[in-house]
This record gives sequence, C-alpha cells and structure tokens, in this order.
Amino acid sequence: MTPEEFRVAGHELIDWIADARAGIDARPVLAPVEPGEVRGWFEAAPPTSVQAFDELLGDLETKVLPGVTQVQHPMHFGWFPSNASLASVLGDIASSGIGSLGISWESSPALTEVEQVVCDWMRQLVGLSDRWHGTIHDTASTACLVALLVARERSTDLVQHRGGTQSVDSPLVVYTTVHAHSSVAKAALLAGFGRDNVRMVDVDPRTHAMDPAALESAMADDAAAGRTPVAVVATVGTTGTTAIDPVAAIVTVAKSHGAYVHVDAALAGSAMLLPEYRHLWSGVEEADSLCWNPHKWMGTVLDCSLFYVRDVGLLTRVMSTDPSYLQSTVDGRVPQYRDWGIPMGRRFRALKLLFQLRLDGVEAIQARLRRDLANAAWLEQQVEAAEGWEVCAPVSLQTVCVRHRPTGASGARLEGSALDRHTLGWTRRVNVSGAAYVTASILDGEWMVRISIGVETTERVHVERLWSLLQDAATS
Amino acid sequence: MTPEEFRVAGHELIDWIADARAGIDARPVLAPVEPGEVRGWFEAAPPTSVQAFDELLGDLETKVLPGVTQVQHPMHFGWFPSNASLASVLGDIASSGIGSLGISWESSPALTEVEQVVCDWMRQLVGLSDRWHGTIHDTASTACLVALLVARERSTDLVQHRGGTQSVDSPLVVYTTVHAHSSVAKAALLAGFGRDNVRMVDVDPRTHAMDPAALESAMADDAAAGRTPVAVVATVGTTGTTAIDPVAAIVTVAKSHGAYVHVDAALAGSAMLLPEYRHLWSGVEEADSLCWNPHKWMGTVLDCSLFYVRDVGLLTRVMSTDPSYLQSTVDGRVPQYRDWGIPMGRRFRALKLLFQLRLDGVEAIQARLRRDLANAAWLEQQVEAAEGWEVCAPVSLQTVCVRHRPTGASGARLEGSALDRHTLGWTRRVNVSGAAYVTASILDGEWMVRISIGVETTERVHVERLWSLLQDAATS
Repeated sequence: MTPEEFRVAGHELIDWIADARAGIDARPVLAPVEPGEVRGWFEAAPPTSVQAFDELLGDLETKVLPGVTQVQHPMHFGWFPSNASLASVLGDIASSGIGSLGISWESSPALTEVEQVVCDWMRQLVGLSDRWHGTIHDTASTACLVALLVARERSTDLVQHRGGTQSVDSPLVVYTTVHAHSSVAKAALLAGFGRDNVRMVDVDPRTHAMDPAALESAMADDAAAGRTPVAVVATVGTTGTTAIDPVAAIVTVAKSHGAYVHVDAALAGSAMLLPEYRHLWSGVEEADSLCWNPHKWMGTVLDCSLFYVRDVGLLTRVMSTDPSYLQSTVDGRVPQYRDWGIPMGRRFRALKLLFQLRLDGVEAIQARLRRDLANAAWLEQQVEAAEGWEVCAPVSLQTVCVRHRPTGASGARLEGSALDRHTLGWTRRVNVSGAAYVTASILDGEWMVRISIGVETTERVHVERLWSLLQDAATS
Repeated sequence: MTPEEFRVAGHELIDWIADARAGIDARPVLAPVEPGEVRGWFEAAPPTSVQAFDELLGDLETKVLPGVTQVQHPMHFGWFPSNASLASVLGDIASSGIGSLGISWESSPALTEVEQVVCDWMRQLVGLSDRWHGTIHDTASTACLVALLVARERSTDLVQHRGGTQSVDSPLVVYTTVHAHSSVAKAALLAGFGRDNVRMVDVDPRTHAMDPAALESAMADDAAAGRTPVAVVATVGTTGTTAIDPVAAIVTVAKSHGAYVHVDAALAGSAMLLPEYRHLWSGVEEADSLCWNPHKWMGTVLDCSLFYVRDVGLLTRVMSTDPSYLQSTVDGRVPQYRDWGIPMGRRFRALKLLFQLRLDGVEAIQARLRRDLANAAWLEQQVEAAEGWEVCAPVSLQTVCVRHRPTGASGARLEGSALDRHTLGWTRRVNVSGAAYVTASILDGEWMVRISIGVETTERVHVERLWSLLQDAATS
C-alpha cells in the first residue's frame, strides 16, 4: 500500500472510528454473539485475492464490531474501566504510523527518551519521589512476574547465573492474599516458587485487606521452618472489592525479614492523581516496585502498564542481555529498556501517554476521576438505603459491591446456593439485555456483583439508570 | 476529546503519517541525536495546561521524528527488517480506535475469534498441519519464555502446583547454541534453569548450525550424570547469520531423551510463505512449539509474534488462571487466550494481520520476499567477487554477512583487533552518514557486518547503492 492509498483509506477509517464512538450508546454493551459465531463469519481458508478497502471496512462494521463488547459504552460497569481516551488513541495511531523499532536506544532514541520523559511525568503526577524510575510494560501481569523474578534473584544473589532456582536449598516463599489478582499467583508459579510456597495471608474480614500481624506470623513460621520469606505482593485496590492492603505496615514486616515488596496498584494508581487519595498507599515509598495501569481508569488505550522500581541496577542485572549486535557507543549512557522487562522489542507506547496528557490535560482527568468517585458514593448510599440490598465491601474507590438478598419462600433471607442462583440470574438478565454490563464475582463464598464505575462517558444519569435496571432485574 | 474533535485531529494525523512515509527517503536512517538530546526537548515537569492538536503535531515533527531511526527507510539494512506495512498500520489503527478489552472471550468475542481465524490462516500459509494451534504474543522473547516454562512443567508433571522449580532434585537442562538469540538464554535464566544448566551445543563451524551429534552427546552426558534434558531451542534463521539449525535431526535426538523442542523462526518464518523454502524447517511438524514474527520481514507493524503449539491442553494447564470474576457460561467452548501466555489483557492484534492479508494480499507479500532473496543473492555475488571482501557465512535467506579484510602495513591481511578496529570504523562511517544503516556483530571472535535486506521499499537500486557506500567507506 502506498502512502497515498493509505491517506485515502486512513481518512475513511478515522471517520469510521469517530462514527462508531459517537454511536456507541445505541449498541448493546455485551456483544450479542454465540461462541464461534464471529469465527463463522470468516472463511476457513486464507484469502487468495485482495480486497478493496471499502469492502474491508464493511467487514469491520458487520463481522467485527458486533462481536466486540463495548467497554467504552457509558453503561459498561464490568471488570474495570478500560477507557481508550480518543486523545490516547491518536498517540497510538502516531506510534503505529511511525513504525519505530524499540530494541535498543539506537534503534529509536525518541522511543526510549520519550518513555523516560512520560514515565517521569507520571511519577510526579502521583506524588512519588525521584527515587523511582519507570518503564511501560504491557500489563500488570507481566509487571508482577518481573517483580517476582527480581525478588527471587535478589534473595539468592542472582542464582540464575549459577544453578538457577532449581538449585536453591531453602524454599523461597511469596506472600499475598486471596484477594490479589489471579496474575499474582500465576506469576509466582511461573517464576518457579511453586504453589506450596505461595502464602495466602489472612485478611481483615470486613475490609478484605491483608492483616500485617498475620503476615508477620506467616513469615516468622516460614523462617523458623528454614524457609526464606522472599517477596510480598500488596494490592492497593483489589480486583474484587478494591480492598486496600496497608502498605506501610506490610513494608515494615517485610523489611524485617529481608523480603521484597511489590505494590500492585493497577487500578488504584490512577486515584493517586488526586492528592486526597494518596493516603491509601501510604508507605509506598519504601516498597521495591509498583505497578499502575493507565490503561484502566485513567484511560490510556490498552496496553499501558507503568512499572516503577527504586533499584534499576538490580532490575537490569536480572533482566539484561548484551548481544554484540545490540552493542553501541552509547552503552551505559542511556537506558536500554529491553533490560527492564521480558520482551526485547517494544512499541512506542509512550506516545499515547504523551498525547493524553497534552490533549486532555491532567486537570480534566482529575475532574473525571472525582466525578466517578462521587458517583460511586451516591450509588453506595442508594444501595444501603434500599430494602433487600446490601453493600458487601467498603467502597474505597469507584467500585460498589452489592448483593440483593430477598426473603425466600421460607421467610428467611436467601443465602448460600439459593442466593448464588438468584444473583447469577439477575446479573445475567442485566447483561444479556445489552442495556448495561456488570460483573459477578465470589466474595466470602457467595456470589456478589461488582459495579465498577469509571467509563469516560459515564455520568450520574447512567449510574441512576443502572441502579434502576438492577432493581428491576433483581425483583422481576 | 469528543468523537468530532478526534475526527478533525485524526485526519490531520493521517496526512502527517502519509507525508512522513512518503518523504522518508530524505531523512537520515540512523537518528542523528546524542544521548539525552530528545529528552532535553521536553520539559522535566508534567504539563499543567492542554495543548492544541496542531502544536502537538508540531512537536511530533520536531521533537519525536528526528529521534527515530528510520527502519522503514529503503536504505535500512540493520538488525532485521522491521516493516510496518501501511495496510497493517490501518489494522492497528482500527484496533486502537475500537478500544477493545481482551481479558476473556466475553470481554471481546471478536478479538478472540478473529485471532483464531488469522492464526489459522497464517498456519495454512506456511504449510503447517492442522495439529498446530496459534496465538499472538508480543515478541519472540516472550514466546520462548512461555515455551521453556511449558517444557519445565511438562518434564516435572506440573511441579508449579507443588514445590515449584526450587523443589526439583535432578537438574533440568536446556540446550541451544551460541548463535541463538540472546532472549533464549534470558528465558532459560528467568524460567529458573540457571546458567549452569544451559548448554551451548557445538555448531558446524561453516554453517553455524547446531550439530545434532553434539546435541546427542551433551544430552547423554547430562543424563548419565543424573541431570534431565528438558528442552532444546532450535533456531531457523539465527540473528547473527541466519543459520539454520537442522530441526528434523534435532527433534529425533530430543525425542529420544524426552525433551521438548521449541523452534525459533522469528525471522525465517516469513520465508515459509514460499513453498520452495520450507525444506529449511523440515521436521518442524514434530516440534512442540514454534514462533514466527510477522512483525519482522513480512511487515505486520510491531508487535506481532505468532506462537504455535501442538498441545494446547498442556499450554493452558501451565498458563491458566480461573478467577471467579472471569468465569462465564461459555467456559470450555471458547479459547481464553489469557491462558495461552503471560499477560491477562491483550490488544486486538489480529486486526493488523487481517488488514495486511486482505489489503496487500499473500501474492504481493510472496513476490516481495522473493525480490529480497534475489537481492541478497546478487549482493553475495558482488562481495564474493570483490578484492579484499569476504562473505563470512552461508547466505541462507536475505542476510549477507561480510568482512572487508584489507592488507595491512606489514603486507599481511588484517585480523584480530586490527581487523575489528577497521570493521567498526567503516561501519560507523556508513551509519553516522545517515545514508544507510548496517549492523556490526561478532562472529567467530571477530566483528563482521550484517546486511539484512528486506525493507518493503528496498529495491535492487538501493542494494547497489549500499554496496557502493560500503566499498567507499571501507577504503576511505
């Protein structure tokens, strides 16, 4: 395709994107397709001839978009806000168009240095000190794996350069809670710790936050048994209920055992753009690494997961390679981001952050986050006040966890499997209607529903409409 | 930013991209900037006010593009072809614009199923049987790490669910060669094998390909010493010289020891679009996994690394998580790609492959690859015939490895450190001129220069110009 052909097609595509976004309210939130349906719209054999762009755009409209769950829809309250601010989309388009190769500083100095610039801007915007150095990973899953690999190697004086994890005598142990994201346990297993050495530390039963006394007790038990406490993954804003693990107390306990602390603030990092919320991660300055996903609530189009460490030297000693074909005269004077993570090659992801900060602006982003927090507080009040409804976890951020617990035939409040059937039933009715989407999740052994507020276009009126829909669905 | 603001800005950005691509020949290939220079063009503090789009576009032109090494330039012969076909760029733009969330089938059925479709198309296009199942990772580095994690867990009957790698008694050993990509050793170290258990198997001194007899000998020695041969990473098209490890023979040896075989065909996979080149990976059908990066020579904009396995059940048992908030009624009937790799969230990468195959078409891609192979053969002939020049590795694909070895003051041919100074000197002169870019690399203890042909716009005339530039630089 020539640049002139691209120009013509590109204009059409931009219009298509603008139209799709402008018309998103009219679409169902949950994609109304069955398993295999989208696949069936395409031929099983690869195309043998070329297609005109207009025809392909038609396919995008009729064979792709109907299969997309519309997480940019103002009635999307599922999983977590996965905003793709159109300012950040422009930055991502610039990245694709430039077609840069990020494998070393020399292969794209701007890719490296703009990433330095925006990571440092973002650091300042959440009030972290200049002892922190950042890079962009794809996701918090990868960031957590990197953190646990670094912790593993720090605790063993870089055993990867000798016999590896398999040569370790004293079992290395990782600590987190059952409310941490599933990727934490996955990362621990992939890093070779083994499920036997992943401790799910007790939580406060009301807040679902890690109990530092239980952490101390677990670490002391392991140490007494000849095992080595290696790392704690503390979550600020858990996926299920946005529980806030007490970072300061956790760091104190961890340090006394020489353990590494990784803070997973994938969702809640965005709240730290608001000074009045920074007390939620008090103590973070003494952690070893942290992760925050602007591709969630803040709205940088996926994928954009910020990963900060204090000890860059340690990180790069664990993750570095230095093949001759990548050596250059600038080595040692510039960061080589391939040595800050797993993949050697990287996209120019920094542009989407640059564009969003420059075009939307920090103040507008802050105002939007405060709007969402106020909407969550409003919804919490409605649920608390409604007969048969309960808020089942503290609303620390923009997520409201609810159950509708009606009175059963016996005159008693529903519980256990009867409650679960009821909850999954009304959730399903809301979701398949296409009018809104919420996510059911298990908390303390029973299903509940997470209402995650924070789509860019979600205003109070949408939250009011959702609350009405939920009440109708639960009592119909 | 509203859809209407996006529409206006998007049109300007598309024009900017088209102009930048159309005018690329006038730019230096290697970005003419010093370390820290791009960074210095930006303020150290985050922006406190919003910027008009035109102003930001101006920054893109004056503060970003000058810092980008132009790997889409027809005179780029460095590292490897990192094409970003404009058709695939359109697909990537669609992906960003749709703003889909790939964390489960339900969160975007089309994202999952179009990935199924295009991975299966690509499988057919390189002649693999339907026993292979594919997904898209970011890079070959990640694919290799996933492969080694799967191999580790297969060999230990999923020890991650018990004591982990650290509880393994008999050391697990990985085999590759010094010519494998640096990410192979990195993956082995991150997976916990330890450097002591990574064997660099001897290679054929002429072809730099793994010697299957040496592999057999190394595995037998390890087994006799109570260690467990676990995995071989065979490379089809090494980074340094595009050496071709003999996959069929390697698979035979590996199987006899129960070891897993991962084939890294990151670059060379694209050659398999040409039936006449498939003999180069003969035996691949019996391997366990393979990786091929369309984001290299084929030209899908980075990042797009295809990863195929034969045993999906094994892969997902190693990589899966199943938190309640991601469970749905379709579980078991659809792939959950989060269980095929490390990150939970993924972009809609399949669209860039779909667009490239539909708009450029397979025949045009094949014709371009054949053109590049012919250009490499032509250059090889020129170098072979030129006084003082030598081709220092077999030209199996589109990369020509050369040294200029002039007669020194003593009357003897240069070698050792004197040759290295000469090689690095003339390479540097070519590269800093901005007229072309080539990559120096160490082979058999001496620096040589890799001429990697395959940019979309590189025609014979560009290769001729390069050859002239190299001769001038080496003798000036």
